[in-house]
Amino acid sequence: MAKNSYVHGYSPRESERLADQAETLTELLHHDTHYPAGSQVLEAGCGIGAQTVILARNSPGARIMSVDISEASLRRAQEKVRQEGITNVVFRQGDIFHLPFEPESFDHIFVCFVLEHLADPQRALETLRPLLKEGGTLTVIEGDHGSAFFHPDSKDAHRAIDCLVKLQQQLGGNALIGRQLFPLVTGAGFEEVCVSPRMVYVDSSRPALVEGFTKLTFTAMVEGVGPEVEKQGLMSREEWKRGIAALYRTAEEDGVFCYTFFKATARK
Amino acid sequence: MAKNSYVHGYSPRESERLADQAETLTELLHHDTHYPAGSQVLEAGCGIGAQTVILARNSPGARIMSVDISEASLRRAQEKVRQEGITNVVFRQGDIFHLPFEPESFDHIFVCFVLEHLADPQRALETLRPLLKEGGTLTVIEGDHGSAFFHPDSKDAHRAIDCLVKLQQQLGGNALIGRQLFPLVTGAGFEEVCVSPRMVYVDSSRPALVEGFTKLTFTAMVEGVGPEVEKQGLMSREEWKRGIAALYRTAEEDGVFCYTFFKATARK
Repeated sequence: MAKNSYVHGYSPRESERLADQAETLTELLHHDTHYPAGSQVLEAGCGIGAQTVILARNSPGARIMSVDISEASLRRAQEKVRQEGITNVVFRQGDIFHLPFEPESFDHIFVCFVLEHLADPQRALETLRPLLKEGGTLTVIEGDHGSAFFHPDSKDAHRAIDCLVKLQQQLGGNALIGRQLFPLVTGAGFEEVCVSPRMVYVDSSRPALVEGFTKLTFTAMVEGVGPEVEKQGLMSREEWKRGIAALYRTAEEDGVFCYTFFKATARK
Repeated sequence: MAKNSYVHGYSPRESERLADQAETLTELLHHDTHYPAGSQVLEAGCGIGAQTVILARNSPGARIMSVDISEASLRRAQEKVRQEGITNVVFRQGDIFHLPFEPESFDHIFVCFVLEHLADPQRALETLRPLLKEGGTLTVIEGDHGSAFFHPDSKDAHRAIDCLVKLQQQLGGNALIGRQLFPLVTGAGFEEVCVSPRMVYVDSSRPALVEGFTKLTFTAMVEGVGPEVEKQGLMSREEWKRGIAALYRTAEEDGVFCYTFFKATARK
């Protein structure tokens, strides 16, 4: 796994981006996830808690165990949950491949924006499966950078996005994982696998999405890897600038931007 | 406008493809189009009637005027409607840019898979607008070949799709028009423009779509331009074969295929 300076979700700007993203996309991604009162839910890979607060609010009676490998992220997630007055979440540090739980500890497992960072996402799901009670559910949400298309179209913009895909690949991840949820979840031994695409469609009649998604989420994320793209010489500075400008161009009056997240649900 | 032998919807295989497509996608594309009894509806560009029968069944009390430039297509549309026992459709030959109707003749206008073939789609919408009564609605549905992505991914498959886009461009059309509906409809002077994407998501848990969409609609359509691609030397025979094989590969057990149609509604 190659090393580079792009580490998703850790810089202040990235954190802000994740928070913006979480708010804009809450309805689209989470409206159909509600866990019953008293159920035990594992959130595997909670990061700085962007999804945790949504999860906890949508299922106020469920008991949520949120784990992450990073102590620093956990501290911020804990702070966020405290600020929101949420009391049904417990945090614990742990590696998704070696979680400190007994088999069949959970009624439901929730995994959001995590598999994209893993070199072997199917093994992660296989490792989580025994922690689930028989009949328990798995929910997985991931994006797919190859799903992005827009008007006006731009080769430079697509190349800039491809740089992001390459950098995530260097880190052992896969930014095109959304489309693969069906074979991944099926391959990990789950039943009743159902994948639903969640397209974020943005035109100027939806100004909150123009700001919150096209600019502050997607384009900001691409823009954020500029220094690393330059360092590695993946695109010339001029091409890169044109690519980023073309992405911002899609946020204008006559522009359109499309991106698709995928949500999989399955049963053990 | 260059000439080539690819003319969408006119060969027997293409016609069969359009019929398959219409059935598989009916619910996704048409479930929210119902016109009131007694309303006058113009279907501009009905082709061989694939959408006409759906339109007429969904709005049995509306009076539908379906026009097309091709007499041959109209005869087949007429035959189809007769076979289905549909009685609320009248057919008339006409050019979308010179339709033989008085201003404000219609309560609603419906345009499906037509703009993609026109060199100046916005002018077509501008030309249709006066035919609509004040407060009447416009509905436009179009696909977008640039929205296709799949698993396993394949450069050859994307190149094959790009050939289709190029050939449609040679004919003066635009196979990437779906994403542009918002600026086109807005630019033509309509109000309350609302675009909704309709993604066809296909994995092996949805066998009817694997057959009906991935294979019989999309891949068959791409495959259909093979002779023209070879004639123009757009791809080598080997690359082309790999591209088509890669598209069929997405229809296997662990494959996934995604394609997005766009539906715009607006008011005069």
